[in-house]
Amino acid sequence: MFGPGGPGGESLVLGIDPGVSRCGYGVVRRDGSRFRAVAYGVIRTPPGDELPDRLATLLHELDALMEEYRPWALAVERVLFQVNTRTAMSVGQASGLALALAGRAGVPVTHYSPNEVKLAVAGDGGAGKFEVQQMVMRLLQLAELPDPPDAADALALALCHWWRAPLAAQGAIGATRSSKLDDAIAAALAKDGAR
Amino acid sequence: MFGPGGPGGESLVLGIDPGVSRCGYGVVRRDGSRFRAVAYGVIRTPPGDELPDRLATLLHELDALMEEYRPWALAVERVLFQVNTRTAMSVGQASGLALALAGRAGVPVTHYSPNEVKLAVAGDGGAGKFEVQQMVMRLLQLAELPDPPDAADALALALCHWWRAPLAAQGAIGATRSSKLDDAIAAALAKDGAR
Repeated sequence: MFGPGGPGGESLVLGIDPGVSRCGYGVVRRDGSRFRAVAYGVIRTPPGDELPDRLATLLHELDALMEEYRPWALAVERVLFQVNTRTAMSVGQASGLALALAGRAGVPVTHYSPNEVKLAVAGDGGAGKFEVQQMVMRLLQLAELPDPPDAADALALALCHWWRAPLAAQGAIGATRSSKLDDAIAAALAKDGAR
Repeated sequence: MFGPGGPGGESLVLGIDPGVSRCGYGVVRRDGSRFRAVAYGVIRTPPGDELPDRLATLLHELDALMEEYRPWALAVERVLFQVNTRTAMSVGQASGLALALAGRAGVPVTHYSPNEVKLAVAGDGGAGKFEVQQMVMRLLQLAELPDPPDAADALALALCHWWRAPLAAQGAIGATRSSKLDDAIAAALAKDGAR
């Protein structure tokens, strides 16, 4: 289930923060004990377009990402059941496309709740958007804050998967942290003098 | 926006009753004042499979339907906002695939609520599943009840679109019935002595 992927045999995780108007994506490579952002951004579809045209654009762009980076895993944000029906429907439409493409390519998908992601990257399930952006910047040693937040969230999802997937493979999800990300977090915090 | 399509220049409408476990489809051709079922059925995905695999199967099957029949329009069931978040998410995932494929092919999509569909084919927005199956059988002159109900619902969606689309094009949705379907309904009822 877990193996190398990506151009040149790199191991890439693709994080997806699904949405029809804005779909965040982030590709994260693990390089020994470090994590690198290979690509990140937001797929936007024009609000004035018809929904089928917007979803066709999203399908095309997600397909292009899958084709270009060939991730070994997808990490997708889980929808909370507090959201209203209209939001759930819309997020379902966007995530359905990503999941179908992953299924077609044989790439395993894991869902993470926003709280799980915040806990993974910021050590606090209640962390704010800005704190997540800051920690993602530190962990990935980016020159600037990843922006917009949807892109930062997608990078955080990919980092979260790097943190939890090895444990998932051992059947011990959530039991302890992956020491690799712990080390990276400690190094990032020590370097920047945060906390 | 409205033009001929389908193999041999036939005008086909594809009705879709979206769902991940069972996705009903029905292809209806208009032949003068009559309506014919060209194909109908249900795409099923195994409940034991992972969701991405199920959605990949659905994407593949829907793509095959679009390719084979090249409809000039899609009629898709609208999700009611009374359903819970989990259902909305799941229906969104299935409908998102159909909509994206329609968008990619440049085929216009119209959503109809279950009540609108029942009103169109049975003359009663509160008609039951069996009544819808019976009316669809009569209107399409099928030898037997279309089964399962998901397939009948998809055929009813396509019939509903034939009933309403010409009016939609005139900007007068819901104002009056298309006389063609009225004639067909009257003929079906008279022939079978129903009501």
